Amino acid sequence: VNADSLQEILARVAAGDLVPDDAFGMLRDLPFADIGSARIDHHREIRVGVPEVVFGQGKTADEIVDVVSELRRKSPGCLVTRLSEEKAALVAPKVDGWDYDPRSQTAICGEVKREMGTETVVVASAGTSDEPVVSEALRTLQFLGLRSEVVRDVGVAGLPRLLDVRPTLDRATIVIVVAGMEGALATAVAGLVAAPVVAVPTSVGYGASFEGLAALLAMLSSCAPGVSVVNIDNGFGAAVVAAKMLNAVRRGD
Amino acid sequence: VNADSLQEILARVAAGDLVPDDAFGMLRDLPFADIGSARIDHHREIRVGVPEVVFGQGKTADEIVDVVSELRRKSPGCLVTRLSEEKAALVAPKVDGWDYDPRSQTAICGEVKREMGTETVVVASAGTSDEPVVSEALRTLQFLGLRSEVVRDVGVAGLPRLLDVRPTLDRATIVIVVAGMEGALATAVAGLVAAPVVAVPTSVGYGASFEGLAALLAMLSSCAPGVSVVNIDNGFGAAVVAAKMLNAVRRGD
Amino acid sequence: VNADSLQEILARVAAGDLVPDDAFGMLRDLPFADIGSARIDHHREIRVGVPEVVFGQGKTADEIVDVVSELRRKSPGCLVTRLSEEKAALVAPKVDGWDYDPRSQTAICGEVKREMGTETVVVASAGTSDEPVVSEALRTLQFLGLRSEVVRDVGVAGLPRLLDVRPTLDRATIVIVVAGMEGALATAVAGLVAAPVVAVPTSVGYGASFEGLAALLAMLSSCAPGVSVVNIDNGFGAAVVAAKMLNAVRRGD
Amino acid sequence: VNADSLQEILARVAAGDLVPDDAFGMLRDLPFADIGSARIDHHREIRVGVPEVVFGQGKTADEIVDVVSELRRKSPGCLVTRLSEEKAALVAPKVDGWDYDPRSQTAICGEVKREMGTETVVVASAGTSDEPVVSEALRTLQFLGLRSEVVRDVGVAGLPRLLDVRPTLDRATIVIVVAGMEGALATAVAGLVAAPVVAVPTSVGYGASFEGLAALLAMLSSCAPGVSVVNIDNGFGAAVVAAKMLNAVRRGD
Amino acid sequence: VNADSLQEILARVAAGDLVPDDAFGMLRDLPFADIGSARIDHHREIRVGVPEVVFGQGKTADEIVDVVSELRRKSPGCLVTRLSEEKAALVAPKVDGWDYDPRSQTAICGEVKREMGTETVVVASAGTSDEPVVSEALRTLQFLGLRSEVVRDVGVAGLPRLLDVRPTLDRATIVIVVAGMEGALATAVAGLVAAPVVAVPTSVGYGASFEGLAALLAMLSSCAPGVSVVNIDNGFGAAVVAAKMLNAVRRGD
Amino acid sequence: VNADSLQEILARVAAGDLVPDDAFGMLRDLPFADIGSARIDHHREIRVGVPEVVFGQGKTADEIVDVVSELRRKSPGCLVTRLSEEKAALVAPKVDGWDYDPRSQTAICGEVKREMGTETVVVASAGTSDEPVVSEALRTLQFLGLRSEVVRDVGVAGLPRLLDVRPTLDRATIVIVVAGMEGALATAVAGLVAAPVVAVPTSVGYGASFEGLAALLAMLSSCAPGVSVVNIDNGFGAAVVAAKMLNAVRRGD
Amino acid sequence: VNADSLQEILARVAAGDLVPDDAFGMLRDLPFADIGSARIDHHREIRVGVPEVVFGQGKTADEIVDVVSELRRKSPGCLVTRLSEEKAALVAPKVDGWDYDPRSQTAICGEVKREMGTETVVVASAGTSDEPVVSEALRTLQFLGLRSEVVRDVGVAGLPRLLDVRPTLDRATIVIVVAGMEGALATAVAGLVAAPVVAVPTSVGYGASFEGLAALLAMLSSCAPGVSVVNIDNGFGAAVVAAKMLNAVRRGD
Amino acid sequence: VNADSLQEILARVAAGDLVPDDAFGMLRDLPFADIGSARIDHHREIRVGVPEVVFGQGKTADEIVDVVSELRRKSPGCLVTRLSEEKAALVAPKVDGWDYDPRSQTAICGEVKREMGTETVVVASAGTSDEPVVSEALRTLQFLGLRSEVVRDVGVAGLPRLLDVRPTLDRATIVIVVAGMEGALATAVAGLVAAPVVAVPTSVGYGASFEGLAALLAMLSSCAPGVSVVNIDNGFGAAVVAAKMLNAVRRGD
Repeated sequence: VNADSLQEILARVAAGDLVPDDAFGMLRDLPFADIGSARIDHHREIRVGVPEVVFGQGKTADEIVDVVSELRRKSPGCLVTRLSEEKAALVAPKVDGWDYDPRSQTAICGEVKREMGTETVVVASAGTSDEPVVSEALRTLQFLGLRSEVVRDVGVAGLPRLLDVRPTLDRATIVIVVAGMEGALATAVAGLVAAPVVAVPTSVGYGASFEGLAALLAMLSSCAPGVSVVNIDNGFGAAVVAAKMLNAVRRGD
Repeated sequence: VNADSLQEILARVAAGDLVPDDAFGMLRDLPFADIGSARIDHHREIRVGVPEVVFGQGKTADEIVDVVSELRRKSPGCLVTRLSEEKAALVAPKVDGWDYDPRSQTAICGEVKREMGTETVVVASAGTSDEPVVSEALRTLQFLGLRSEVVRDVGVAGLPRLLDVRPTLDRATIVIVVAGMEGALATAVAGLVAAPVVAVPTSVGYGASFEGLAALLAMLSSCAPGVSVVNIDNGFGAAVVAAKMLNAVRRGD
Repeated sequence: VNADSLQEILARVAAGDLVPDDAFGMLRDLPFADIGSARIDHHREIRVGVPEVVFGQGKTADEIVDVVSELRRKSPGCLVTRLSEEKAALVAPKVDGWDYDPRSQTAICGEVKREMGTETVVVASAGTSDEPVVSEALRTLQFLGLRSEVVRDVGVAGLPRLLDVRPTLDRATIVIVVAGMEGALATAVAGLVAAPVVAVPTSVGYGASFEGLAALLAMLSSCAPGVSVVNIDNGFGAAVVAAKMLNAVRRGD
Repeated sequence: VNADSLQEILARVAAGDLVPDDAFGMLRDLPFADIGSARIDHHREIRVGVPEVVFGQGKTADEIVDVVSELRRKSPGCLVTRLSEEKAALVAPKVDGWDYDPRSQTAICGEVKREMGTETVVVASAGTSDEPVVSEALRTLQFLGLRSEVVRDVGVAGLPRLLDVRPTLDRATIVIVVAGMEGALATAVAGLVAAPVVAVPTSVGYGASFEGLAALLAMLSSCAPGVSVVNIDNGFGAAVVAAKMLNAVRRGD
Repeated sequence: VNADSLQEILARVAAGDLVPDDAFGMLRDLPFADIGSARIDHHREIRVGVPEVVFGQGKTADEIVDVVSELRRKSPGCLVTRLSEEKAALVAPKVDGWDYDPRSQTAICGEVKREMGTETVVVASAGTSDEPVVSEALRTLQFLGLRSEVVRDVGVAGLPRLLDVRPTLDRATIVIVVAGMEGALATAVAGLVAAPVVAVPTSVGYGASFEGLAALLAMLSSCAPGVSVVNIDNGFGAAVVAAKMLNAVRRGD
Repeated sequence: VNADSLQEILARVAAGDLVPDDAFGMLRDLPFADIGSARIDHHREIRVGVPEVVFGQGKTADEIVDVVSELRRKSPGCLVTRLSEEKAALVAPKVDGWDYDPRSQTAICGEVKREMGTETVVVASAGTSDEPVVSEALRTLQFLGLRSEVVRDVGVAGLPRLLDVRPTLDRATIVIVVAGMEGALATAVAGLVAAPVVAVPTSVGYGASFEGLAALLAMLSSCAPGVSVVNIDNGFGAAVVAAKMLNAVRRGD
Repeated sequence: VNADSLQEILARVAAGDLVPDDAFGMLRDLPFADIGSARIDHHREIRVGVPEVVFGQGKTADEIVDVVSELRRKSPGCLVTRLSEEKAALVAPKVDGWDYDPRSQTAICGEVKREMGTETVVVASAGTSDEPVVSEALRTLQFLGLRSEVVRDVGVAGLPRLLDVRPTLDRATIVIVVAGMEGALATAVAGLVAAPVVAVPTSVGYGASFEGLAALLAMLSSCAPGVSVVNIDNGFGAAVVAAKMLNAVRRGD
Repeated sequence: VNADSLQEILARVAAGDLVPDDAFGMLRDLPFADIGSARIDHHREIRVGVPEVVFGQGKTADEIVDVVSELRRKSPGCLVTRLSEEKAALVAPKVDGWDYDPRSQTAICGEVKREMGTETVVVASAGTSDEPVVSEALRTLQFLGLRSEVVRDVGVAGLPRLLDVRPTLDRATIVIVVAGMEGALATAVAGLVAAPVVAVPTSVGYGASFEGLAALLAMLSSCAPGVSVVNIDNGFGAAVVAAKMLNAVRRGD
């Protein structure tokens, strides 16, 4: 409902093509549906470029069924994140086209978007313990129709391993770096490649890692410019940042 | 020095086109100069897409003169950030083409890059007290040859002001959101527009703002996906992230 | 036992209408009952405008039965908060008029207060995961005889959803905003409506949300004046603040 | 611009009483003025019940002059907070009706609102070192036309002093409690009186007070319900909360 | 082994009353026994006035049996703290005179010390949820032979309840104040009575209480001098401080 | 105004020995004087065993003059703490018997209390940088009439230095341990002597000392029972705790 | 792949002794194996002096089997740390030479290194609750072929116990100090012996110990120089630091 | 004063070769001198391998003169750290052989130790802003007679710079890594070389670096084993750790 469409609607009212009540409805009919416990934002994709995604944590299985069903009414597929295996088992029988992945704690329900373009998002992880976050990012990229590659276990403690995957990193349009403990991988990658780095600190580690705080602060303080950071363990968020970046590119064409 | 060029160099050595010592030099001649107190990374732009920039804080005026002079030997312009007025006054007489801006605490020395393409970075700030950070971002964008627009004082406390600038935000390829206090502007913008949001928390505020910590945590915890965050008051870093994103686009063409 | 009543009692003693021992008893008989493990404050409602409420966490089921029974001796109803389902099941058979609600972890025992006046407390929540806190607030408002409305899932990530419920918000005498993650909803609401905003940060979120700390700091640092904040997840406390505000009004009539 | 006025405007357009362009202007003409560095929100008072106030910190003297001048164009008086004596001295000659108070670091420029009604806001402070915050609250209350009383130095370390002022506290419609160190005064007052307590932690104290953090956490954790909290040292914010509460009452009449 | 006894031993060696090897043994035979996993400090009571106490947390049931048995070899009774019910059940059959109390998580094994003198330690708690800590303090006082009284549920939210128990507080030689949430009780008591206050913050509360941090900081920042603080939930430690104080008195007689 | 005196007053009223108004005055006449900016608590010494002391920080020189003058009206001497040299110079000409000590930032005005009894408070410090806190404690002890000894620079990094002063420590009725950095001295002393240890963390150190936080947490977590802790740099508070302990002893005689 | 070997390879290519493709392979064949979920760094021991060790936490049992099998292909033994008993039971049947120790949560698989030299690493712990960390350090020392001694339960609260083991400490080439709570043992040992101290804070304690933070900060702030610190509970890391120190010595011979 | 010498002294007493008083003196004469404000530990070098060093911060110029003079009485040289230029200028005229270096804030007074052996400590820094800490480390190494090399500005943001200095790092017996911001250099170096890494986080950076906290936590959480950490900005401490390590080696020969 931007200025242009508002002017057009008013012009149609003035011209008698539209009665005031209908115009009011058009302006008023905001693109969401109120299902009691939630308001489904059907127009989010139009507005911000990515569809609404269901955050599973803190919702009951019934609430998830309701939200997913409403979303499916208007779009071919939807994504649920932070969904435990227990809850997923309760939801599965009640929705069609359910595909749950326990490692990433995500469910894709229905179709994913068609992969478009040649840009590649490379997901690079420091260690195998970061895999749950890596897989959340990969599943989200898949759902959003982005091409991806992954390089695992290339933490800075073994620089040769990192240098070895440099050709893959060089191919990346965007690099998502997933690392816990001291999170140094984000800085090292940002110093090696031209692609922007979206850094995801993970809660891997113990003691002074403080559940991902060490990696988070380190990534924010990176001496290599060109790094931006999302929340701890937020593989989903990093994938959405990547999608918005690539959308920005494509829109610009 | 990636795998392809390494193979090519080796092939030329095998063919006798290149003597081993010269080959060693080519491989060995790393793209920086050691000036004692610093190692100037002349090839950084080739490698990571943005030129090396001088971080003025904690360096003496003499050290800054040395680094700037070395950088200028090989490139037409350079940028100095976090430079106090006192130190800038000491450096100014010793380098050519010095342009210091006290609000942003930056100096541009020599030429800025030529503005290319039609993509626009919109910098949106919550309040006028965020201006030093806004200007650091704008100066960096200017130095890197990026087109920018700015909308100031559109904090969420006055939503109508924000909604009013929505057409500008809608034009953005990337939005840099600069906000202190509770930093809610990043979430609000990310919920309105399709462009990726690079959020810069600022140290504006007092008490429970804890020098920008409140805004930082809030931006990282944003309920609107597509937000990535740089360090507190790091307008420079946000601009570099934007540049790397747009470079990624252009490379992809 | 304020100055006036003290003077009156002394006057009655001087007049021989009251023997010293009785007067001592009146002064001394503080309005609570000592039941060993707790001191029931029967006069709290007279003194501070809201009845004593039982904080269930950290008490055994037996202690809760004792406190509730003593409270019921002098008042028609009482409220228990932070009561787990397990403990509630142990208490239920031992008290009359027990009404337990698992979502809000509250029990109302006996009668609630009669709804008075026309003022309305609107409870607005950012997401469906905030529901336990929302329901604690609503149950407390019900117990205290306050009229309430609720709007759910209107977080700032989807501004149109928030703007859509503005008529409801405009009707509010007081708004209780319940939000986790970055807590931006409090600022947005305070910038839209004239009613005072009582903000409740919730522990919804993960990573840099730090169990509600991000939302708490953000709400305290709000750039919109007129926001005051209660403890994380403290829906009960927000409802009591609202009740005290409305009581203040009514007393003033 | 709520739903009702929107319908009315649309009806007038349909009736031909209003041409579309004018209607667009009415809807579009958001109630602020863009003066470059700031957007003055002239309609804030209509929207949220309190006028826009100038936050002096982080603004240059010139910016303050610009903002104050613009605000004075449309309203009889304005308030500037967090204004140092040095900056105030630079602003004073350039605006009319300037009244600066160094203790509270506030300036009132032009008229204050006429005191209305009989409700009283009592400001109670724990110690004399809290005076800067107390005076910021009192000046804001004066500017907003609220009747106030103040009781100073009634910290919990000397309970008899607190009990002595109980009659004043009992008269309060709202109590603003200002306390640093351990902030226990908020709890004590909330346990004594029926009025809602708006608590302001102050940065008075040292060591483990952590610049007001101890008082802030204590006030948020108060065992006495009915306490809500604003930012550390935010006397202004507490006064605005009080004003919004009383406005809510008056609107309700 | 202080200077005096050292001189005496040397004199006896010089006089031929003591052969060097025996003297060495006397000096060398430090007053503890090495049982492999622990070193039992049999002379601790002589040295520091309180017997060694077993910290049960993090020890296996077998280790506790070993330590208790060794301690019992030389002293009539011993105390075990932080001992879960599960572990206590495993230890019970293997030691004589076992008296376990689940509320305080303590076991007394053998005799307690004979109560001496007329001094009284009053333990005052803010709420019934503080009871586990209260009982740990009371059990320790009992074990150490100190006379105690207890007043429960006298938190500052209900000042009349506190004022009511003032006669008991006035009788105290030392007051141990046990309080969670905002911990204001320590300040209030220290402002009322002449006895020193040993404050024990408890982890009672939620959210911004941060597991006792709010009470801890508040007690350390108390505006009432004469308060000293022990660790969160450390009822045992407070009782030992009280014992050392009273020992100091008695030694001084 | 305890129960006994209340009964006596009431009895005298009933007997006609006291007219109600006078009785009211006796009860009502709380032992403080309101001088506008402060309420002087003349009866504090009677009530809590130590006289009211003036906290100089955050008060103007004029306010300090007012408070000191009022205190001197009823008592022979008073103590001012946290008083900078600049402010002290402004106060000095306006009060009699002024004795300012810049190291401890304290002023004693008038007489100190007569030293009584044979108990000794030993103040032990870890390093010479702790001296300002040591001297604040010593000056307070002097003002309160307590006998003291001091041992400096006996930090745990040089255990022989600590063992060397053990005879002095053994003579102590109470030991005040003053230490910054890692604060280990408190634990070491508590493990050596029978006297209770009042620990004062200091802000000496840098980096991970976090202005005294490391020492504070370490002292609270001490593995040696019998340690209680006051605020960072709070030498005054430790001395008052010692005084209250010794008063408790003497009262008990 | 250092400069010398690079020159040699190039010389061989130039001499025709090596065809370019083979040379590329030699340079390219980085010393690790990619097994999908992990990259095994077979050459780590050559490069950094200690073999790669498997961090068990956050890996599935299958992943551990894969990594261990790959490591065993090229080396006689390997170490797994942070491995729960449950997971260990799943791995055990699938690998040869499995030796799991539940106290230290480590498994040694295959041979340990032969003990060399006469240097001794002494592990000193403050209390028996530190045993899991002690045993992780001892198992790692054993695996790395280092001679070790251990002294337990010598915390600073009982200085005589510490002084008693001084002969053992004096024999140490390196001392690993393991301590929780206030961590004072590190400082005390560093002040007594010439050997470097590697300090391991443990999460033993409660309340203000904050899961090892108190000990960590205290150790970092130690007033005794010569202390360096590893992560909380990181017995493994301390052992590796010791091994690298002794390797440095041996290399130097 | 270990067990052996104690036995020897006792034997001499028994043999009549030593009168008890003299023996007492020998045992009692602890190796320090009490100069009032400080206790000089002359035997520290014998005991712990490094001489006592003067920590200048928080001491007056006079106190520094006293301590230095006392130290010089018994040893040829001494080191003062954390000494500001202002204070150094006051001390300089009063002591002989004064050599002050403003960058490192250190003074060497008298002779440094003779360089021994062939081991080399390499100090590697991430950026030129770390220079003050680097120079404190280098001056301390010089004072302690250790051979050193330095490589500056090799932060991970430019990996080629780091790889370029690998030959120097490979020569190191010990590497001291000095880095602020995200501190990734420590991990990268530990993954490249066999020498133990002593990591010094610096307070270089801003915002989420939190005065060195980000680098500190990152270094403690390093995924590369063999890293131990000293306090923020503690170049002195790192040098002493290195000295103790090398002493350990030399003793072992």
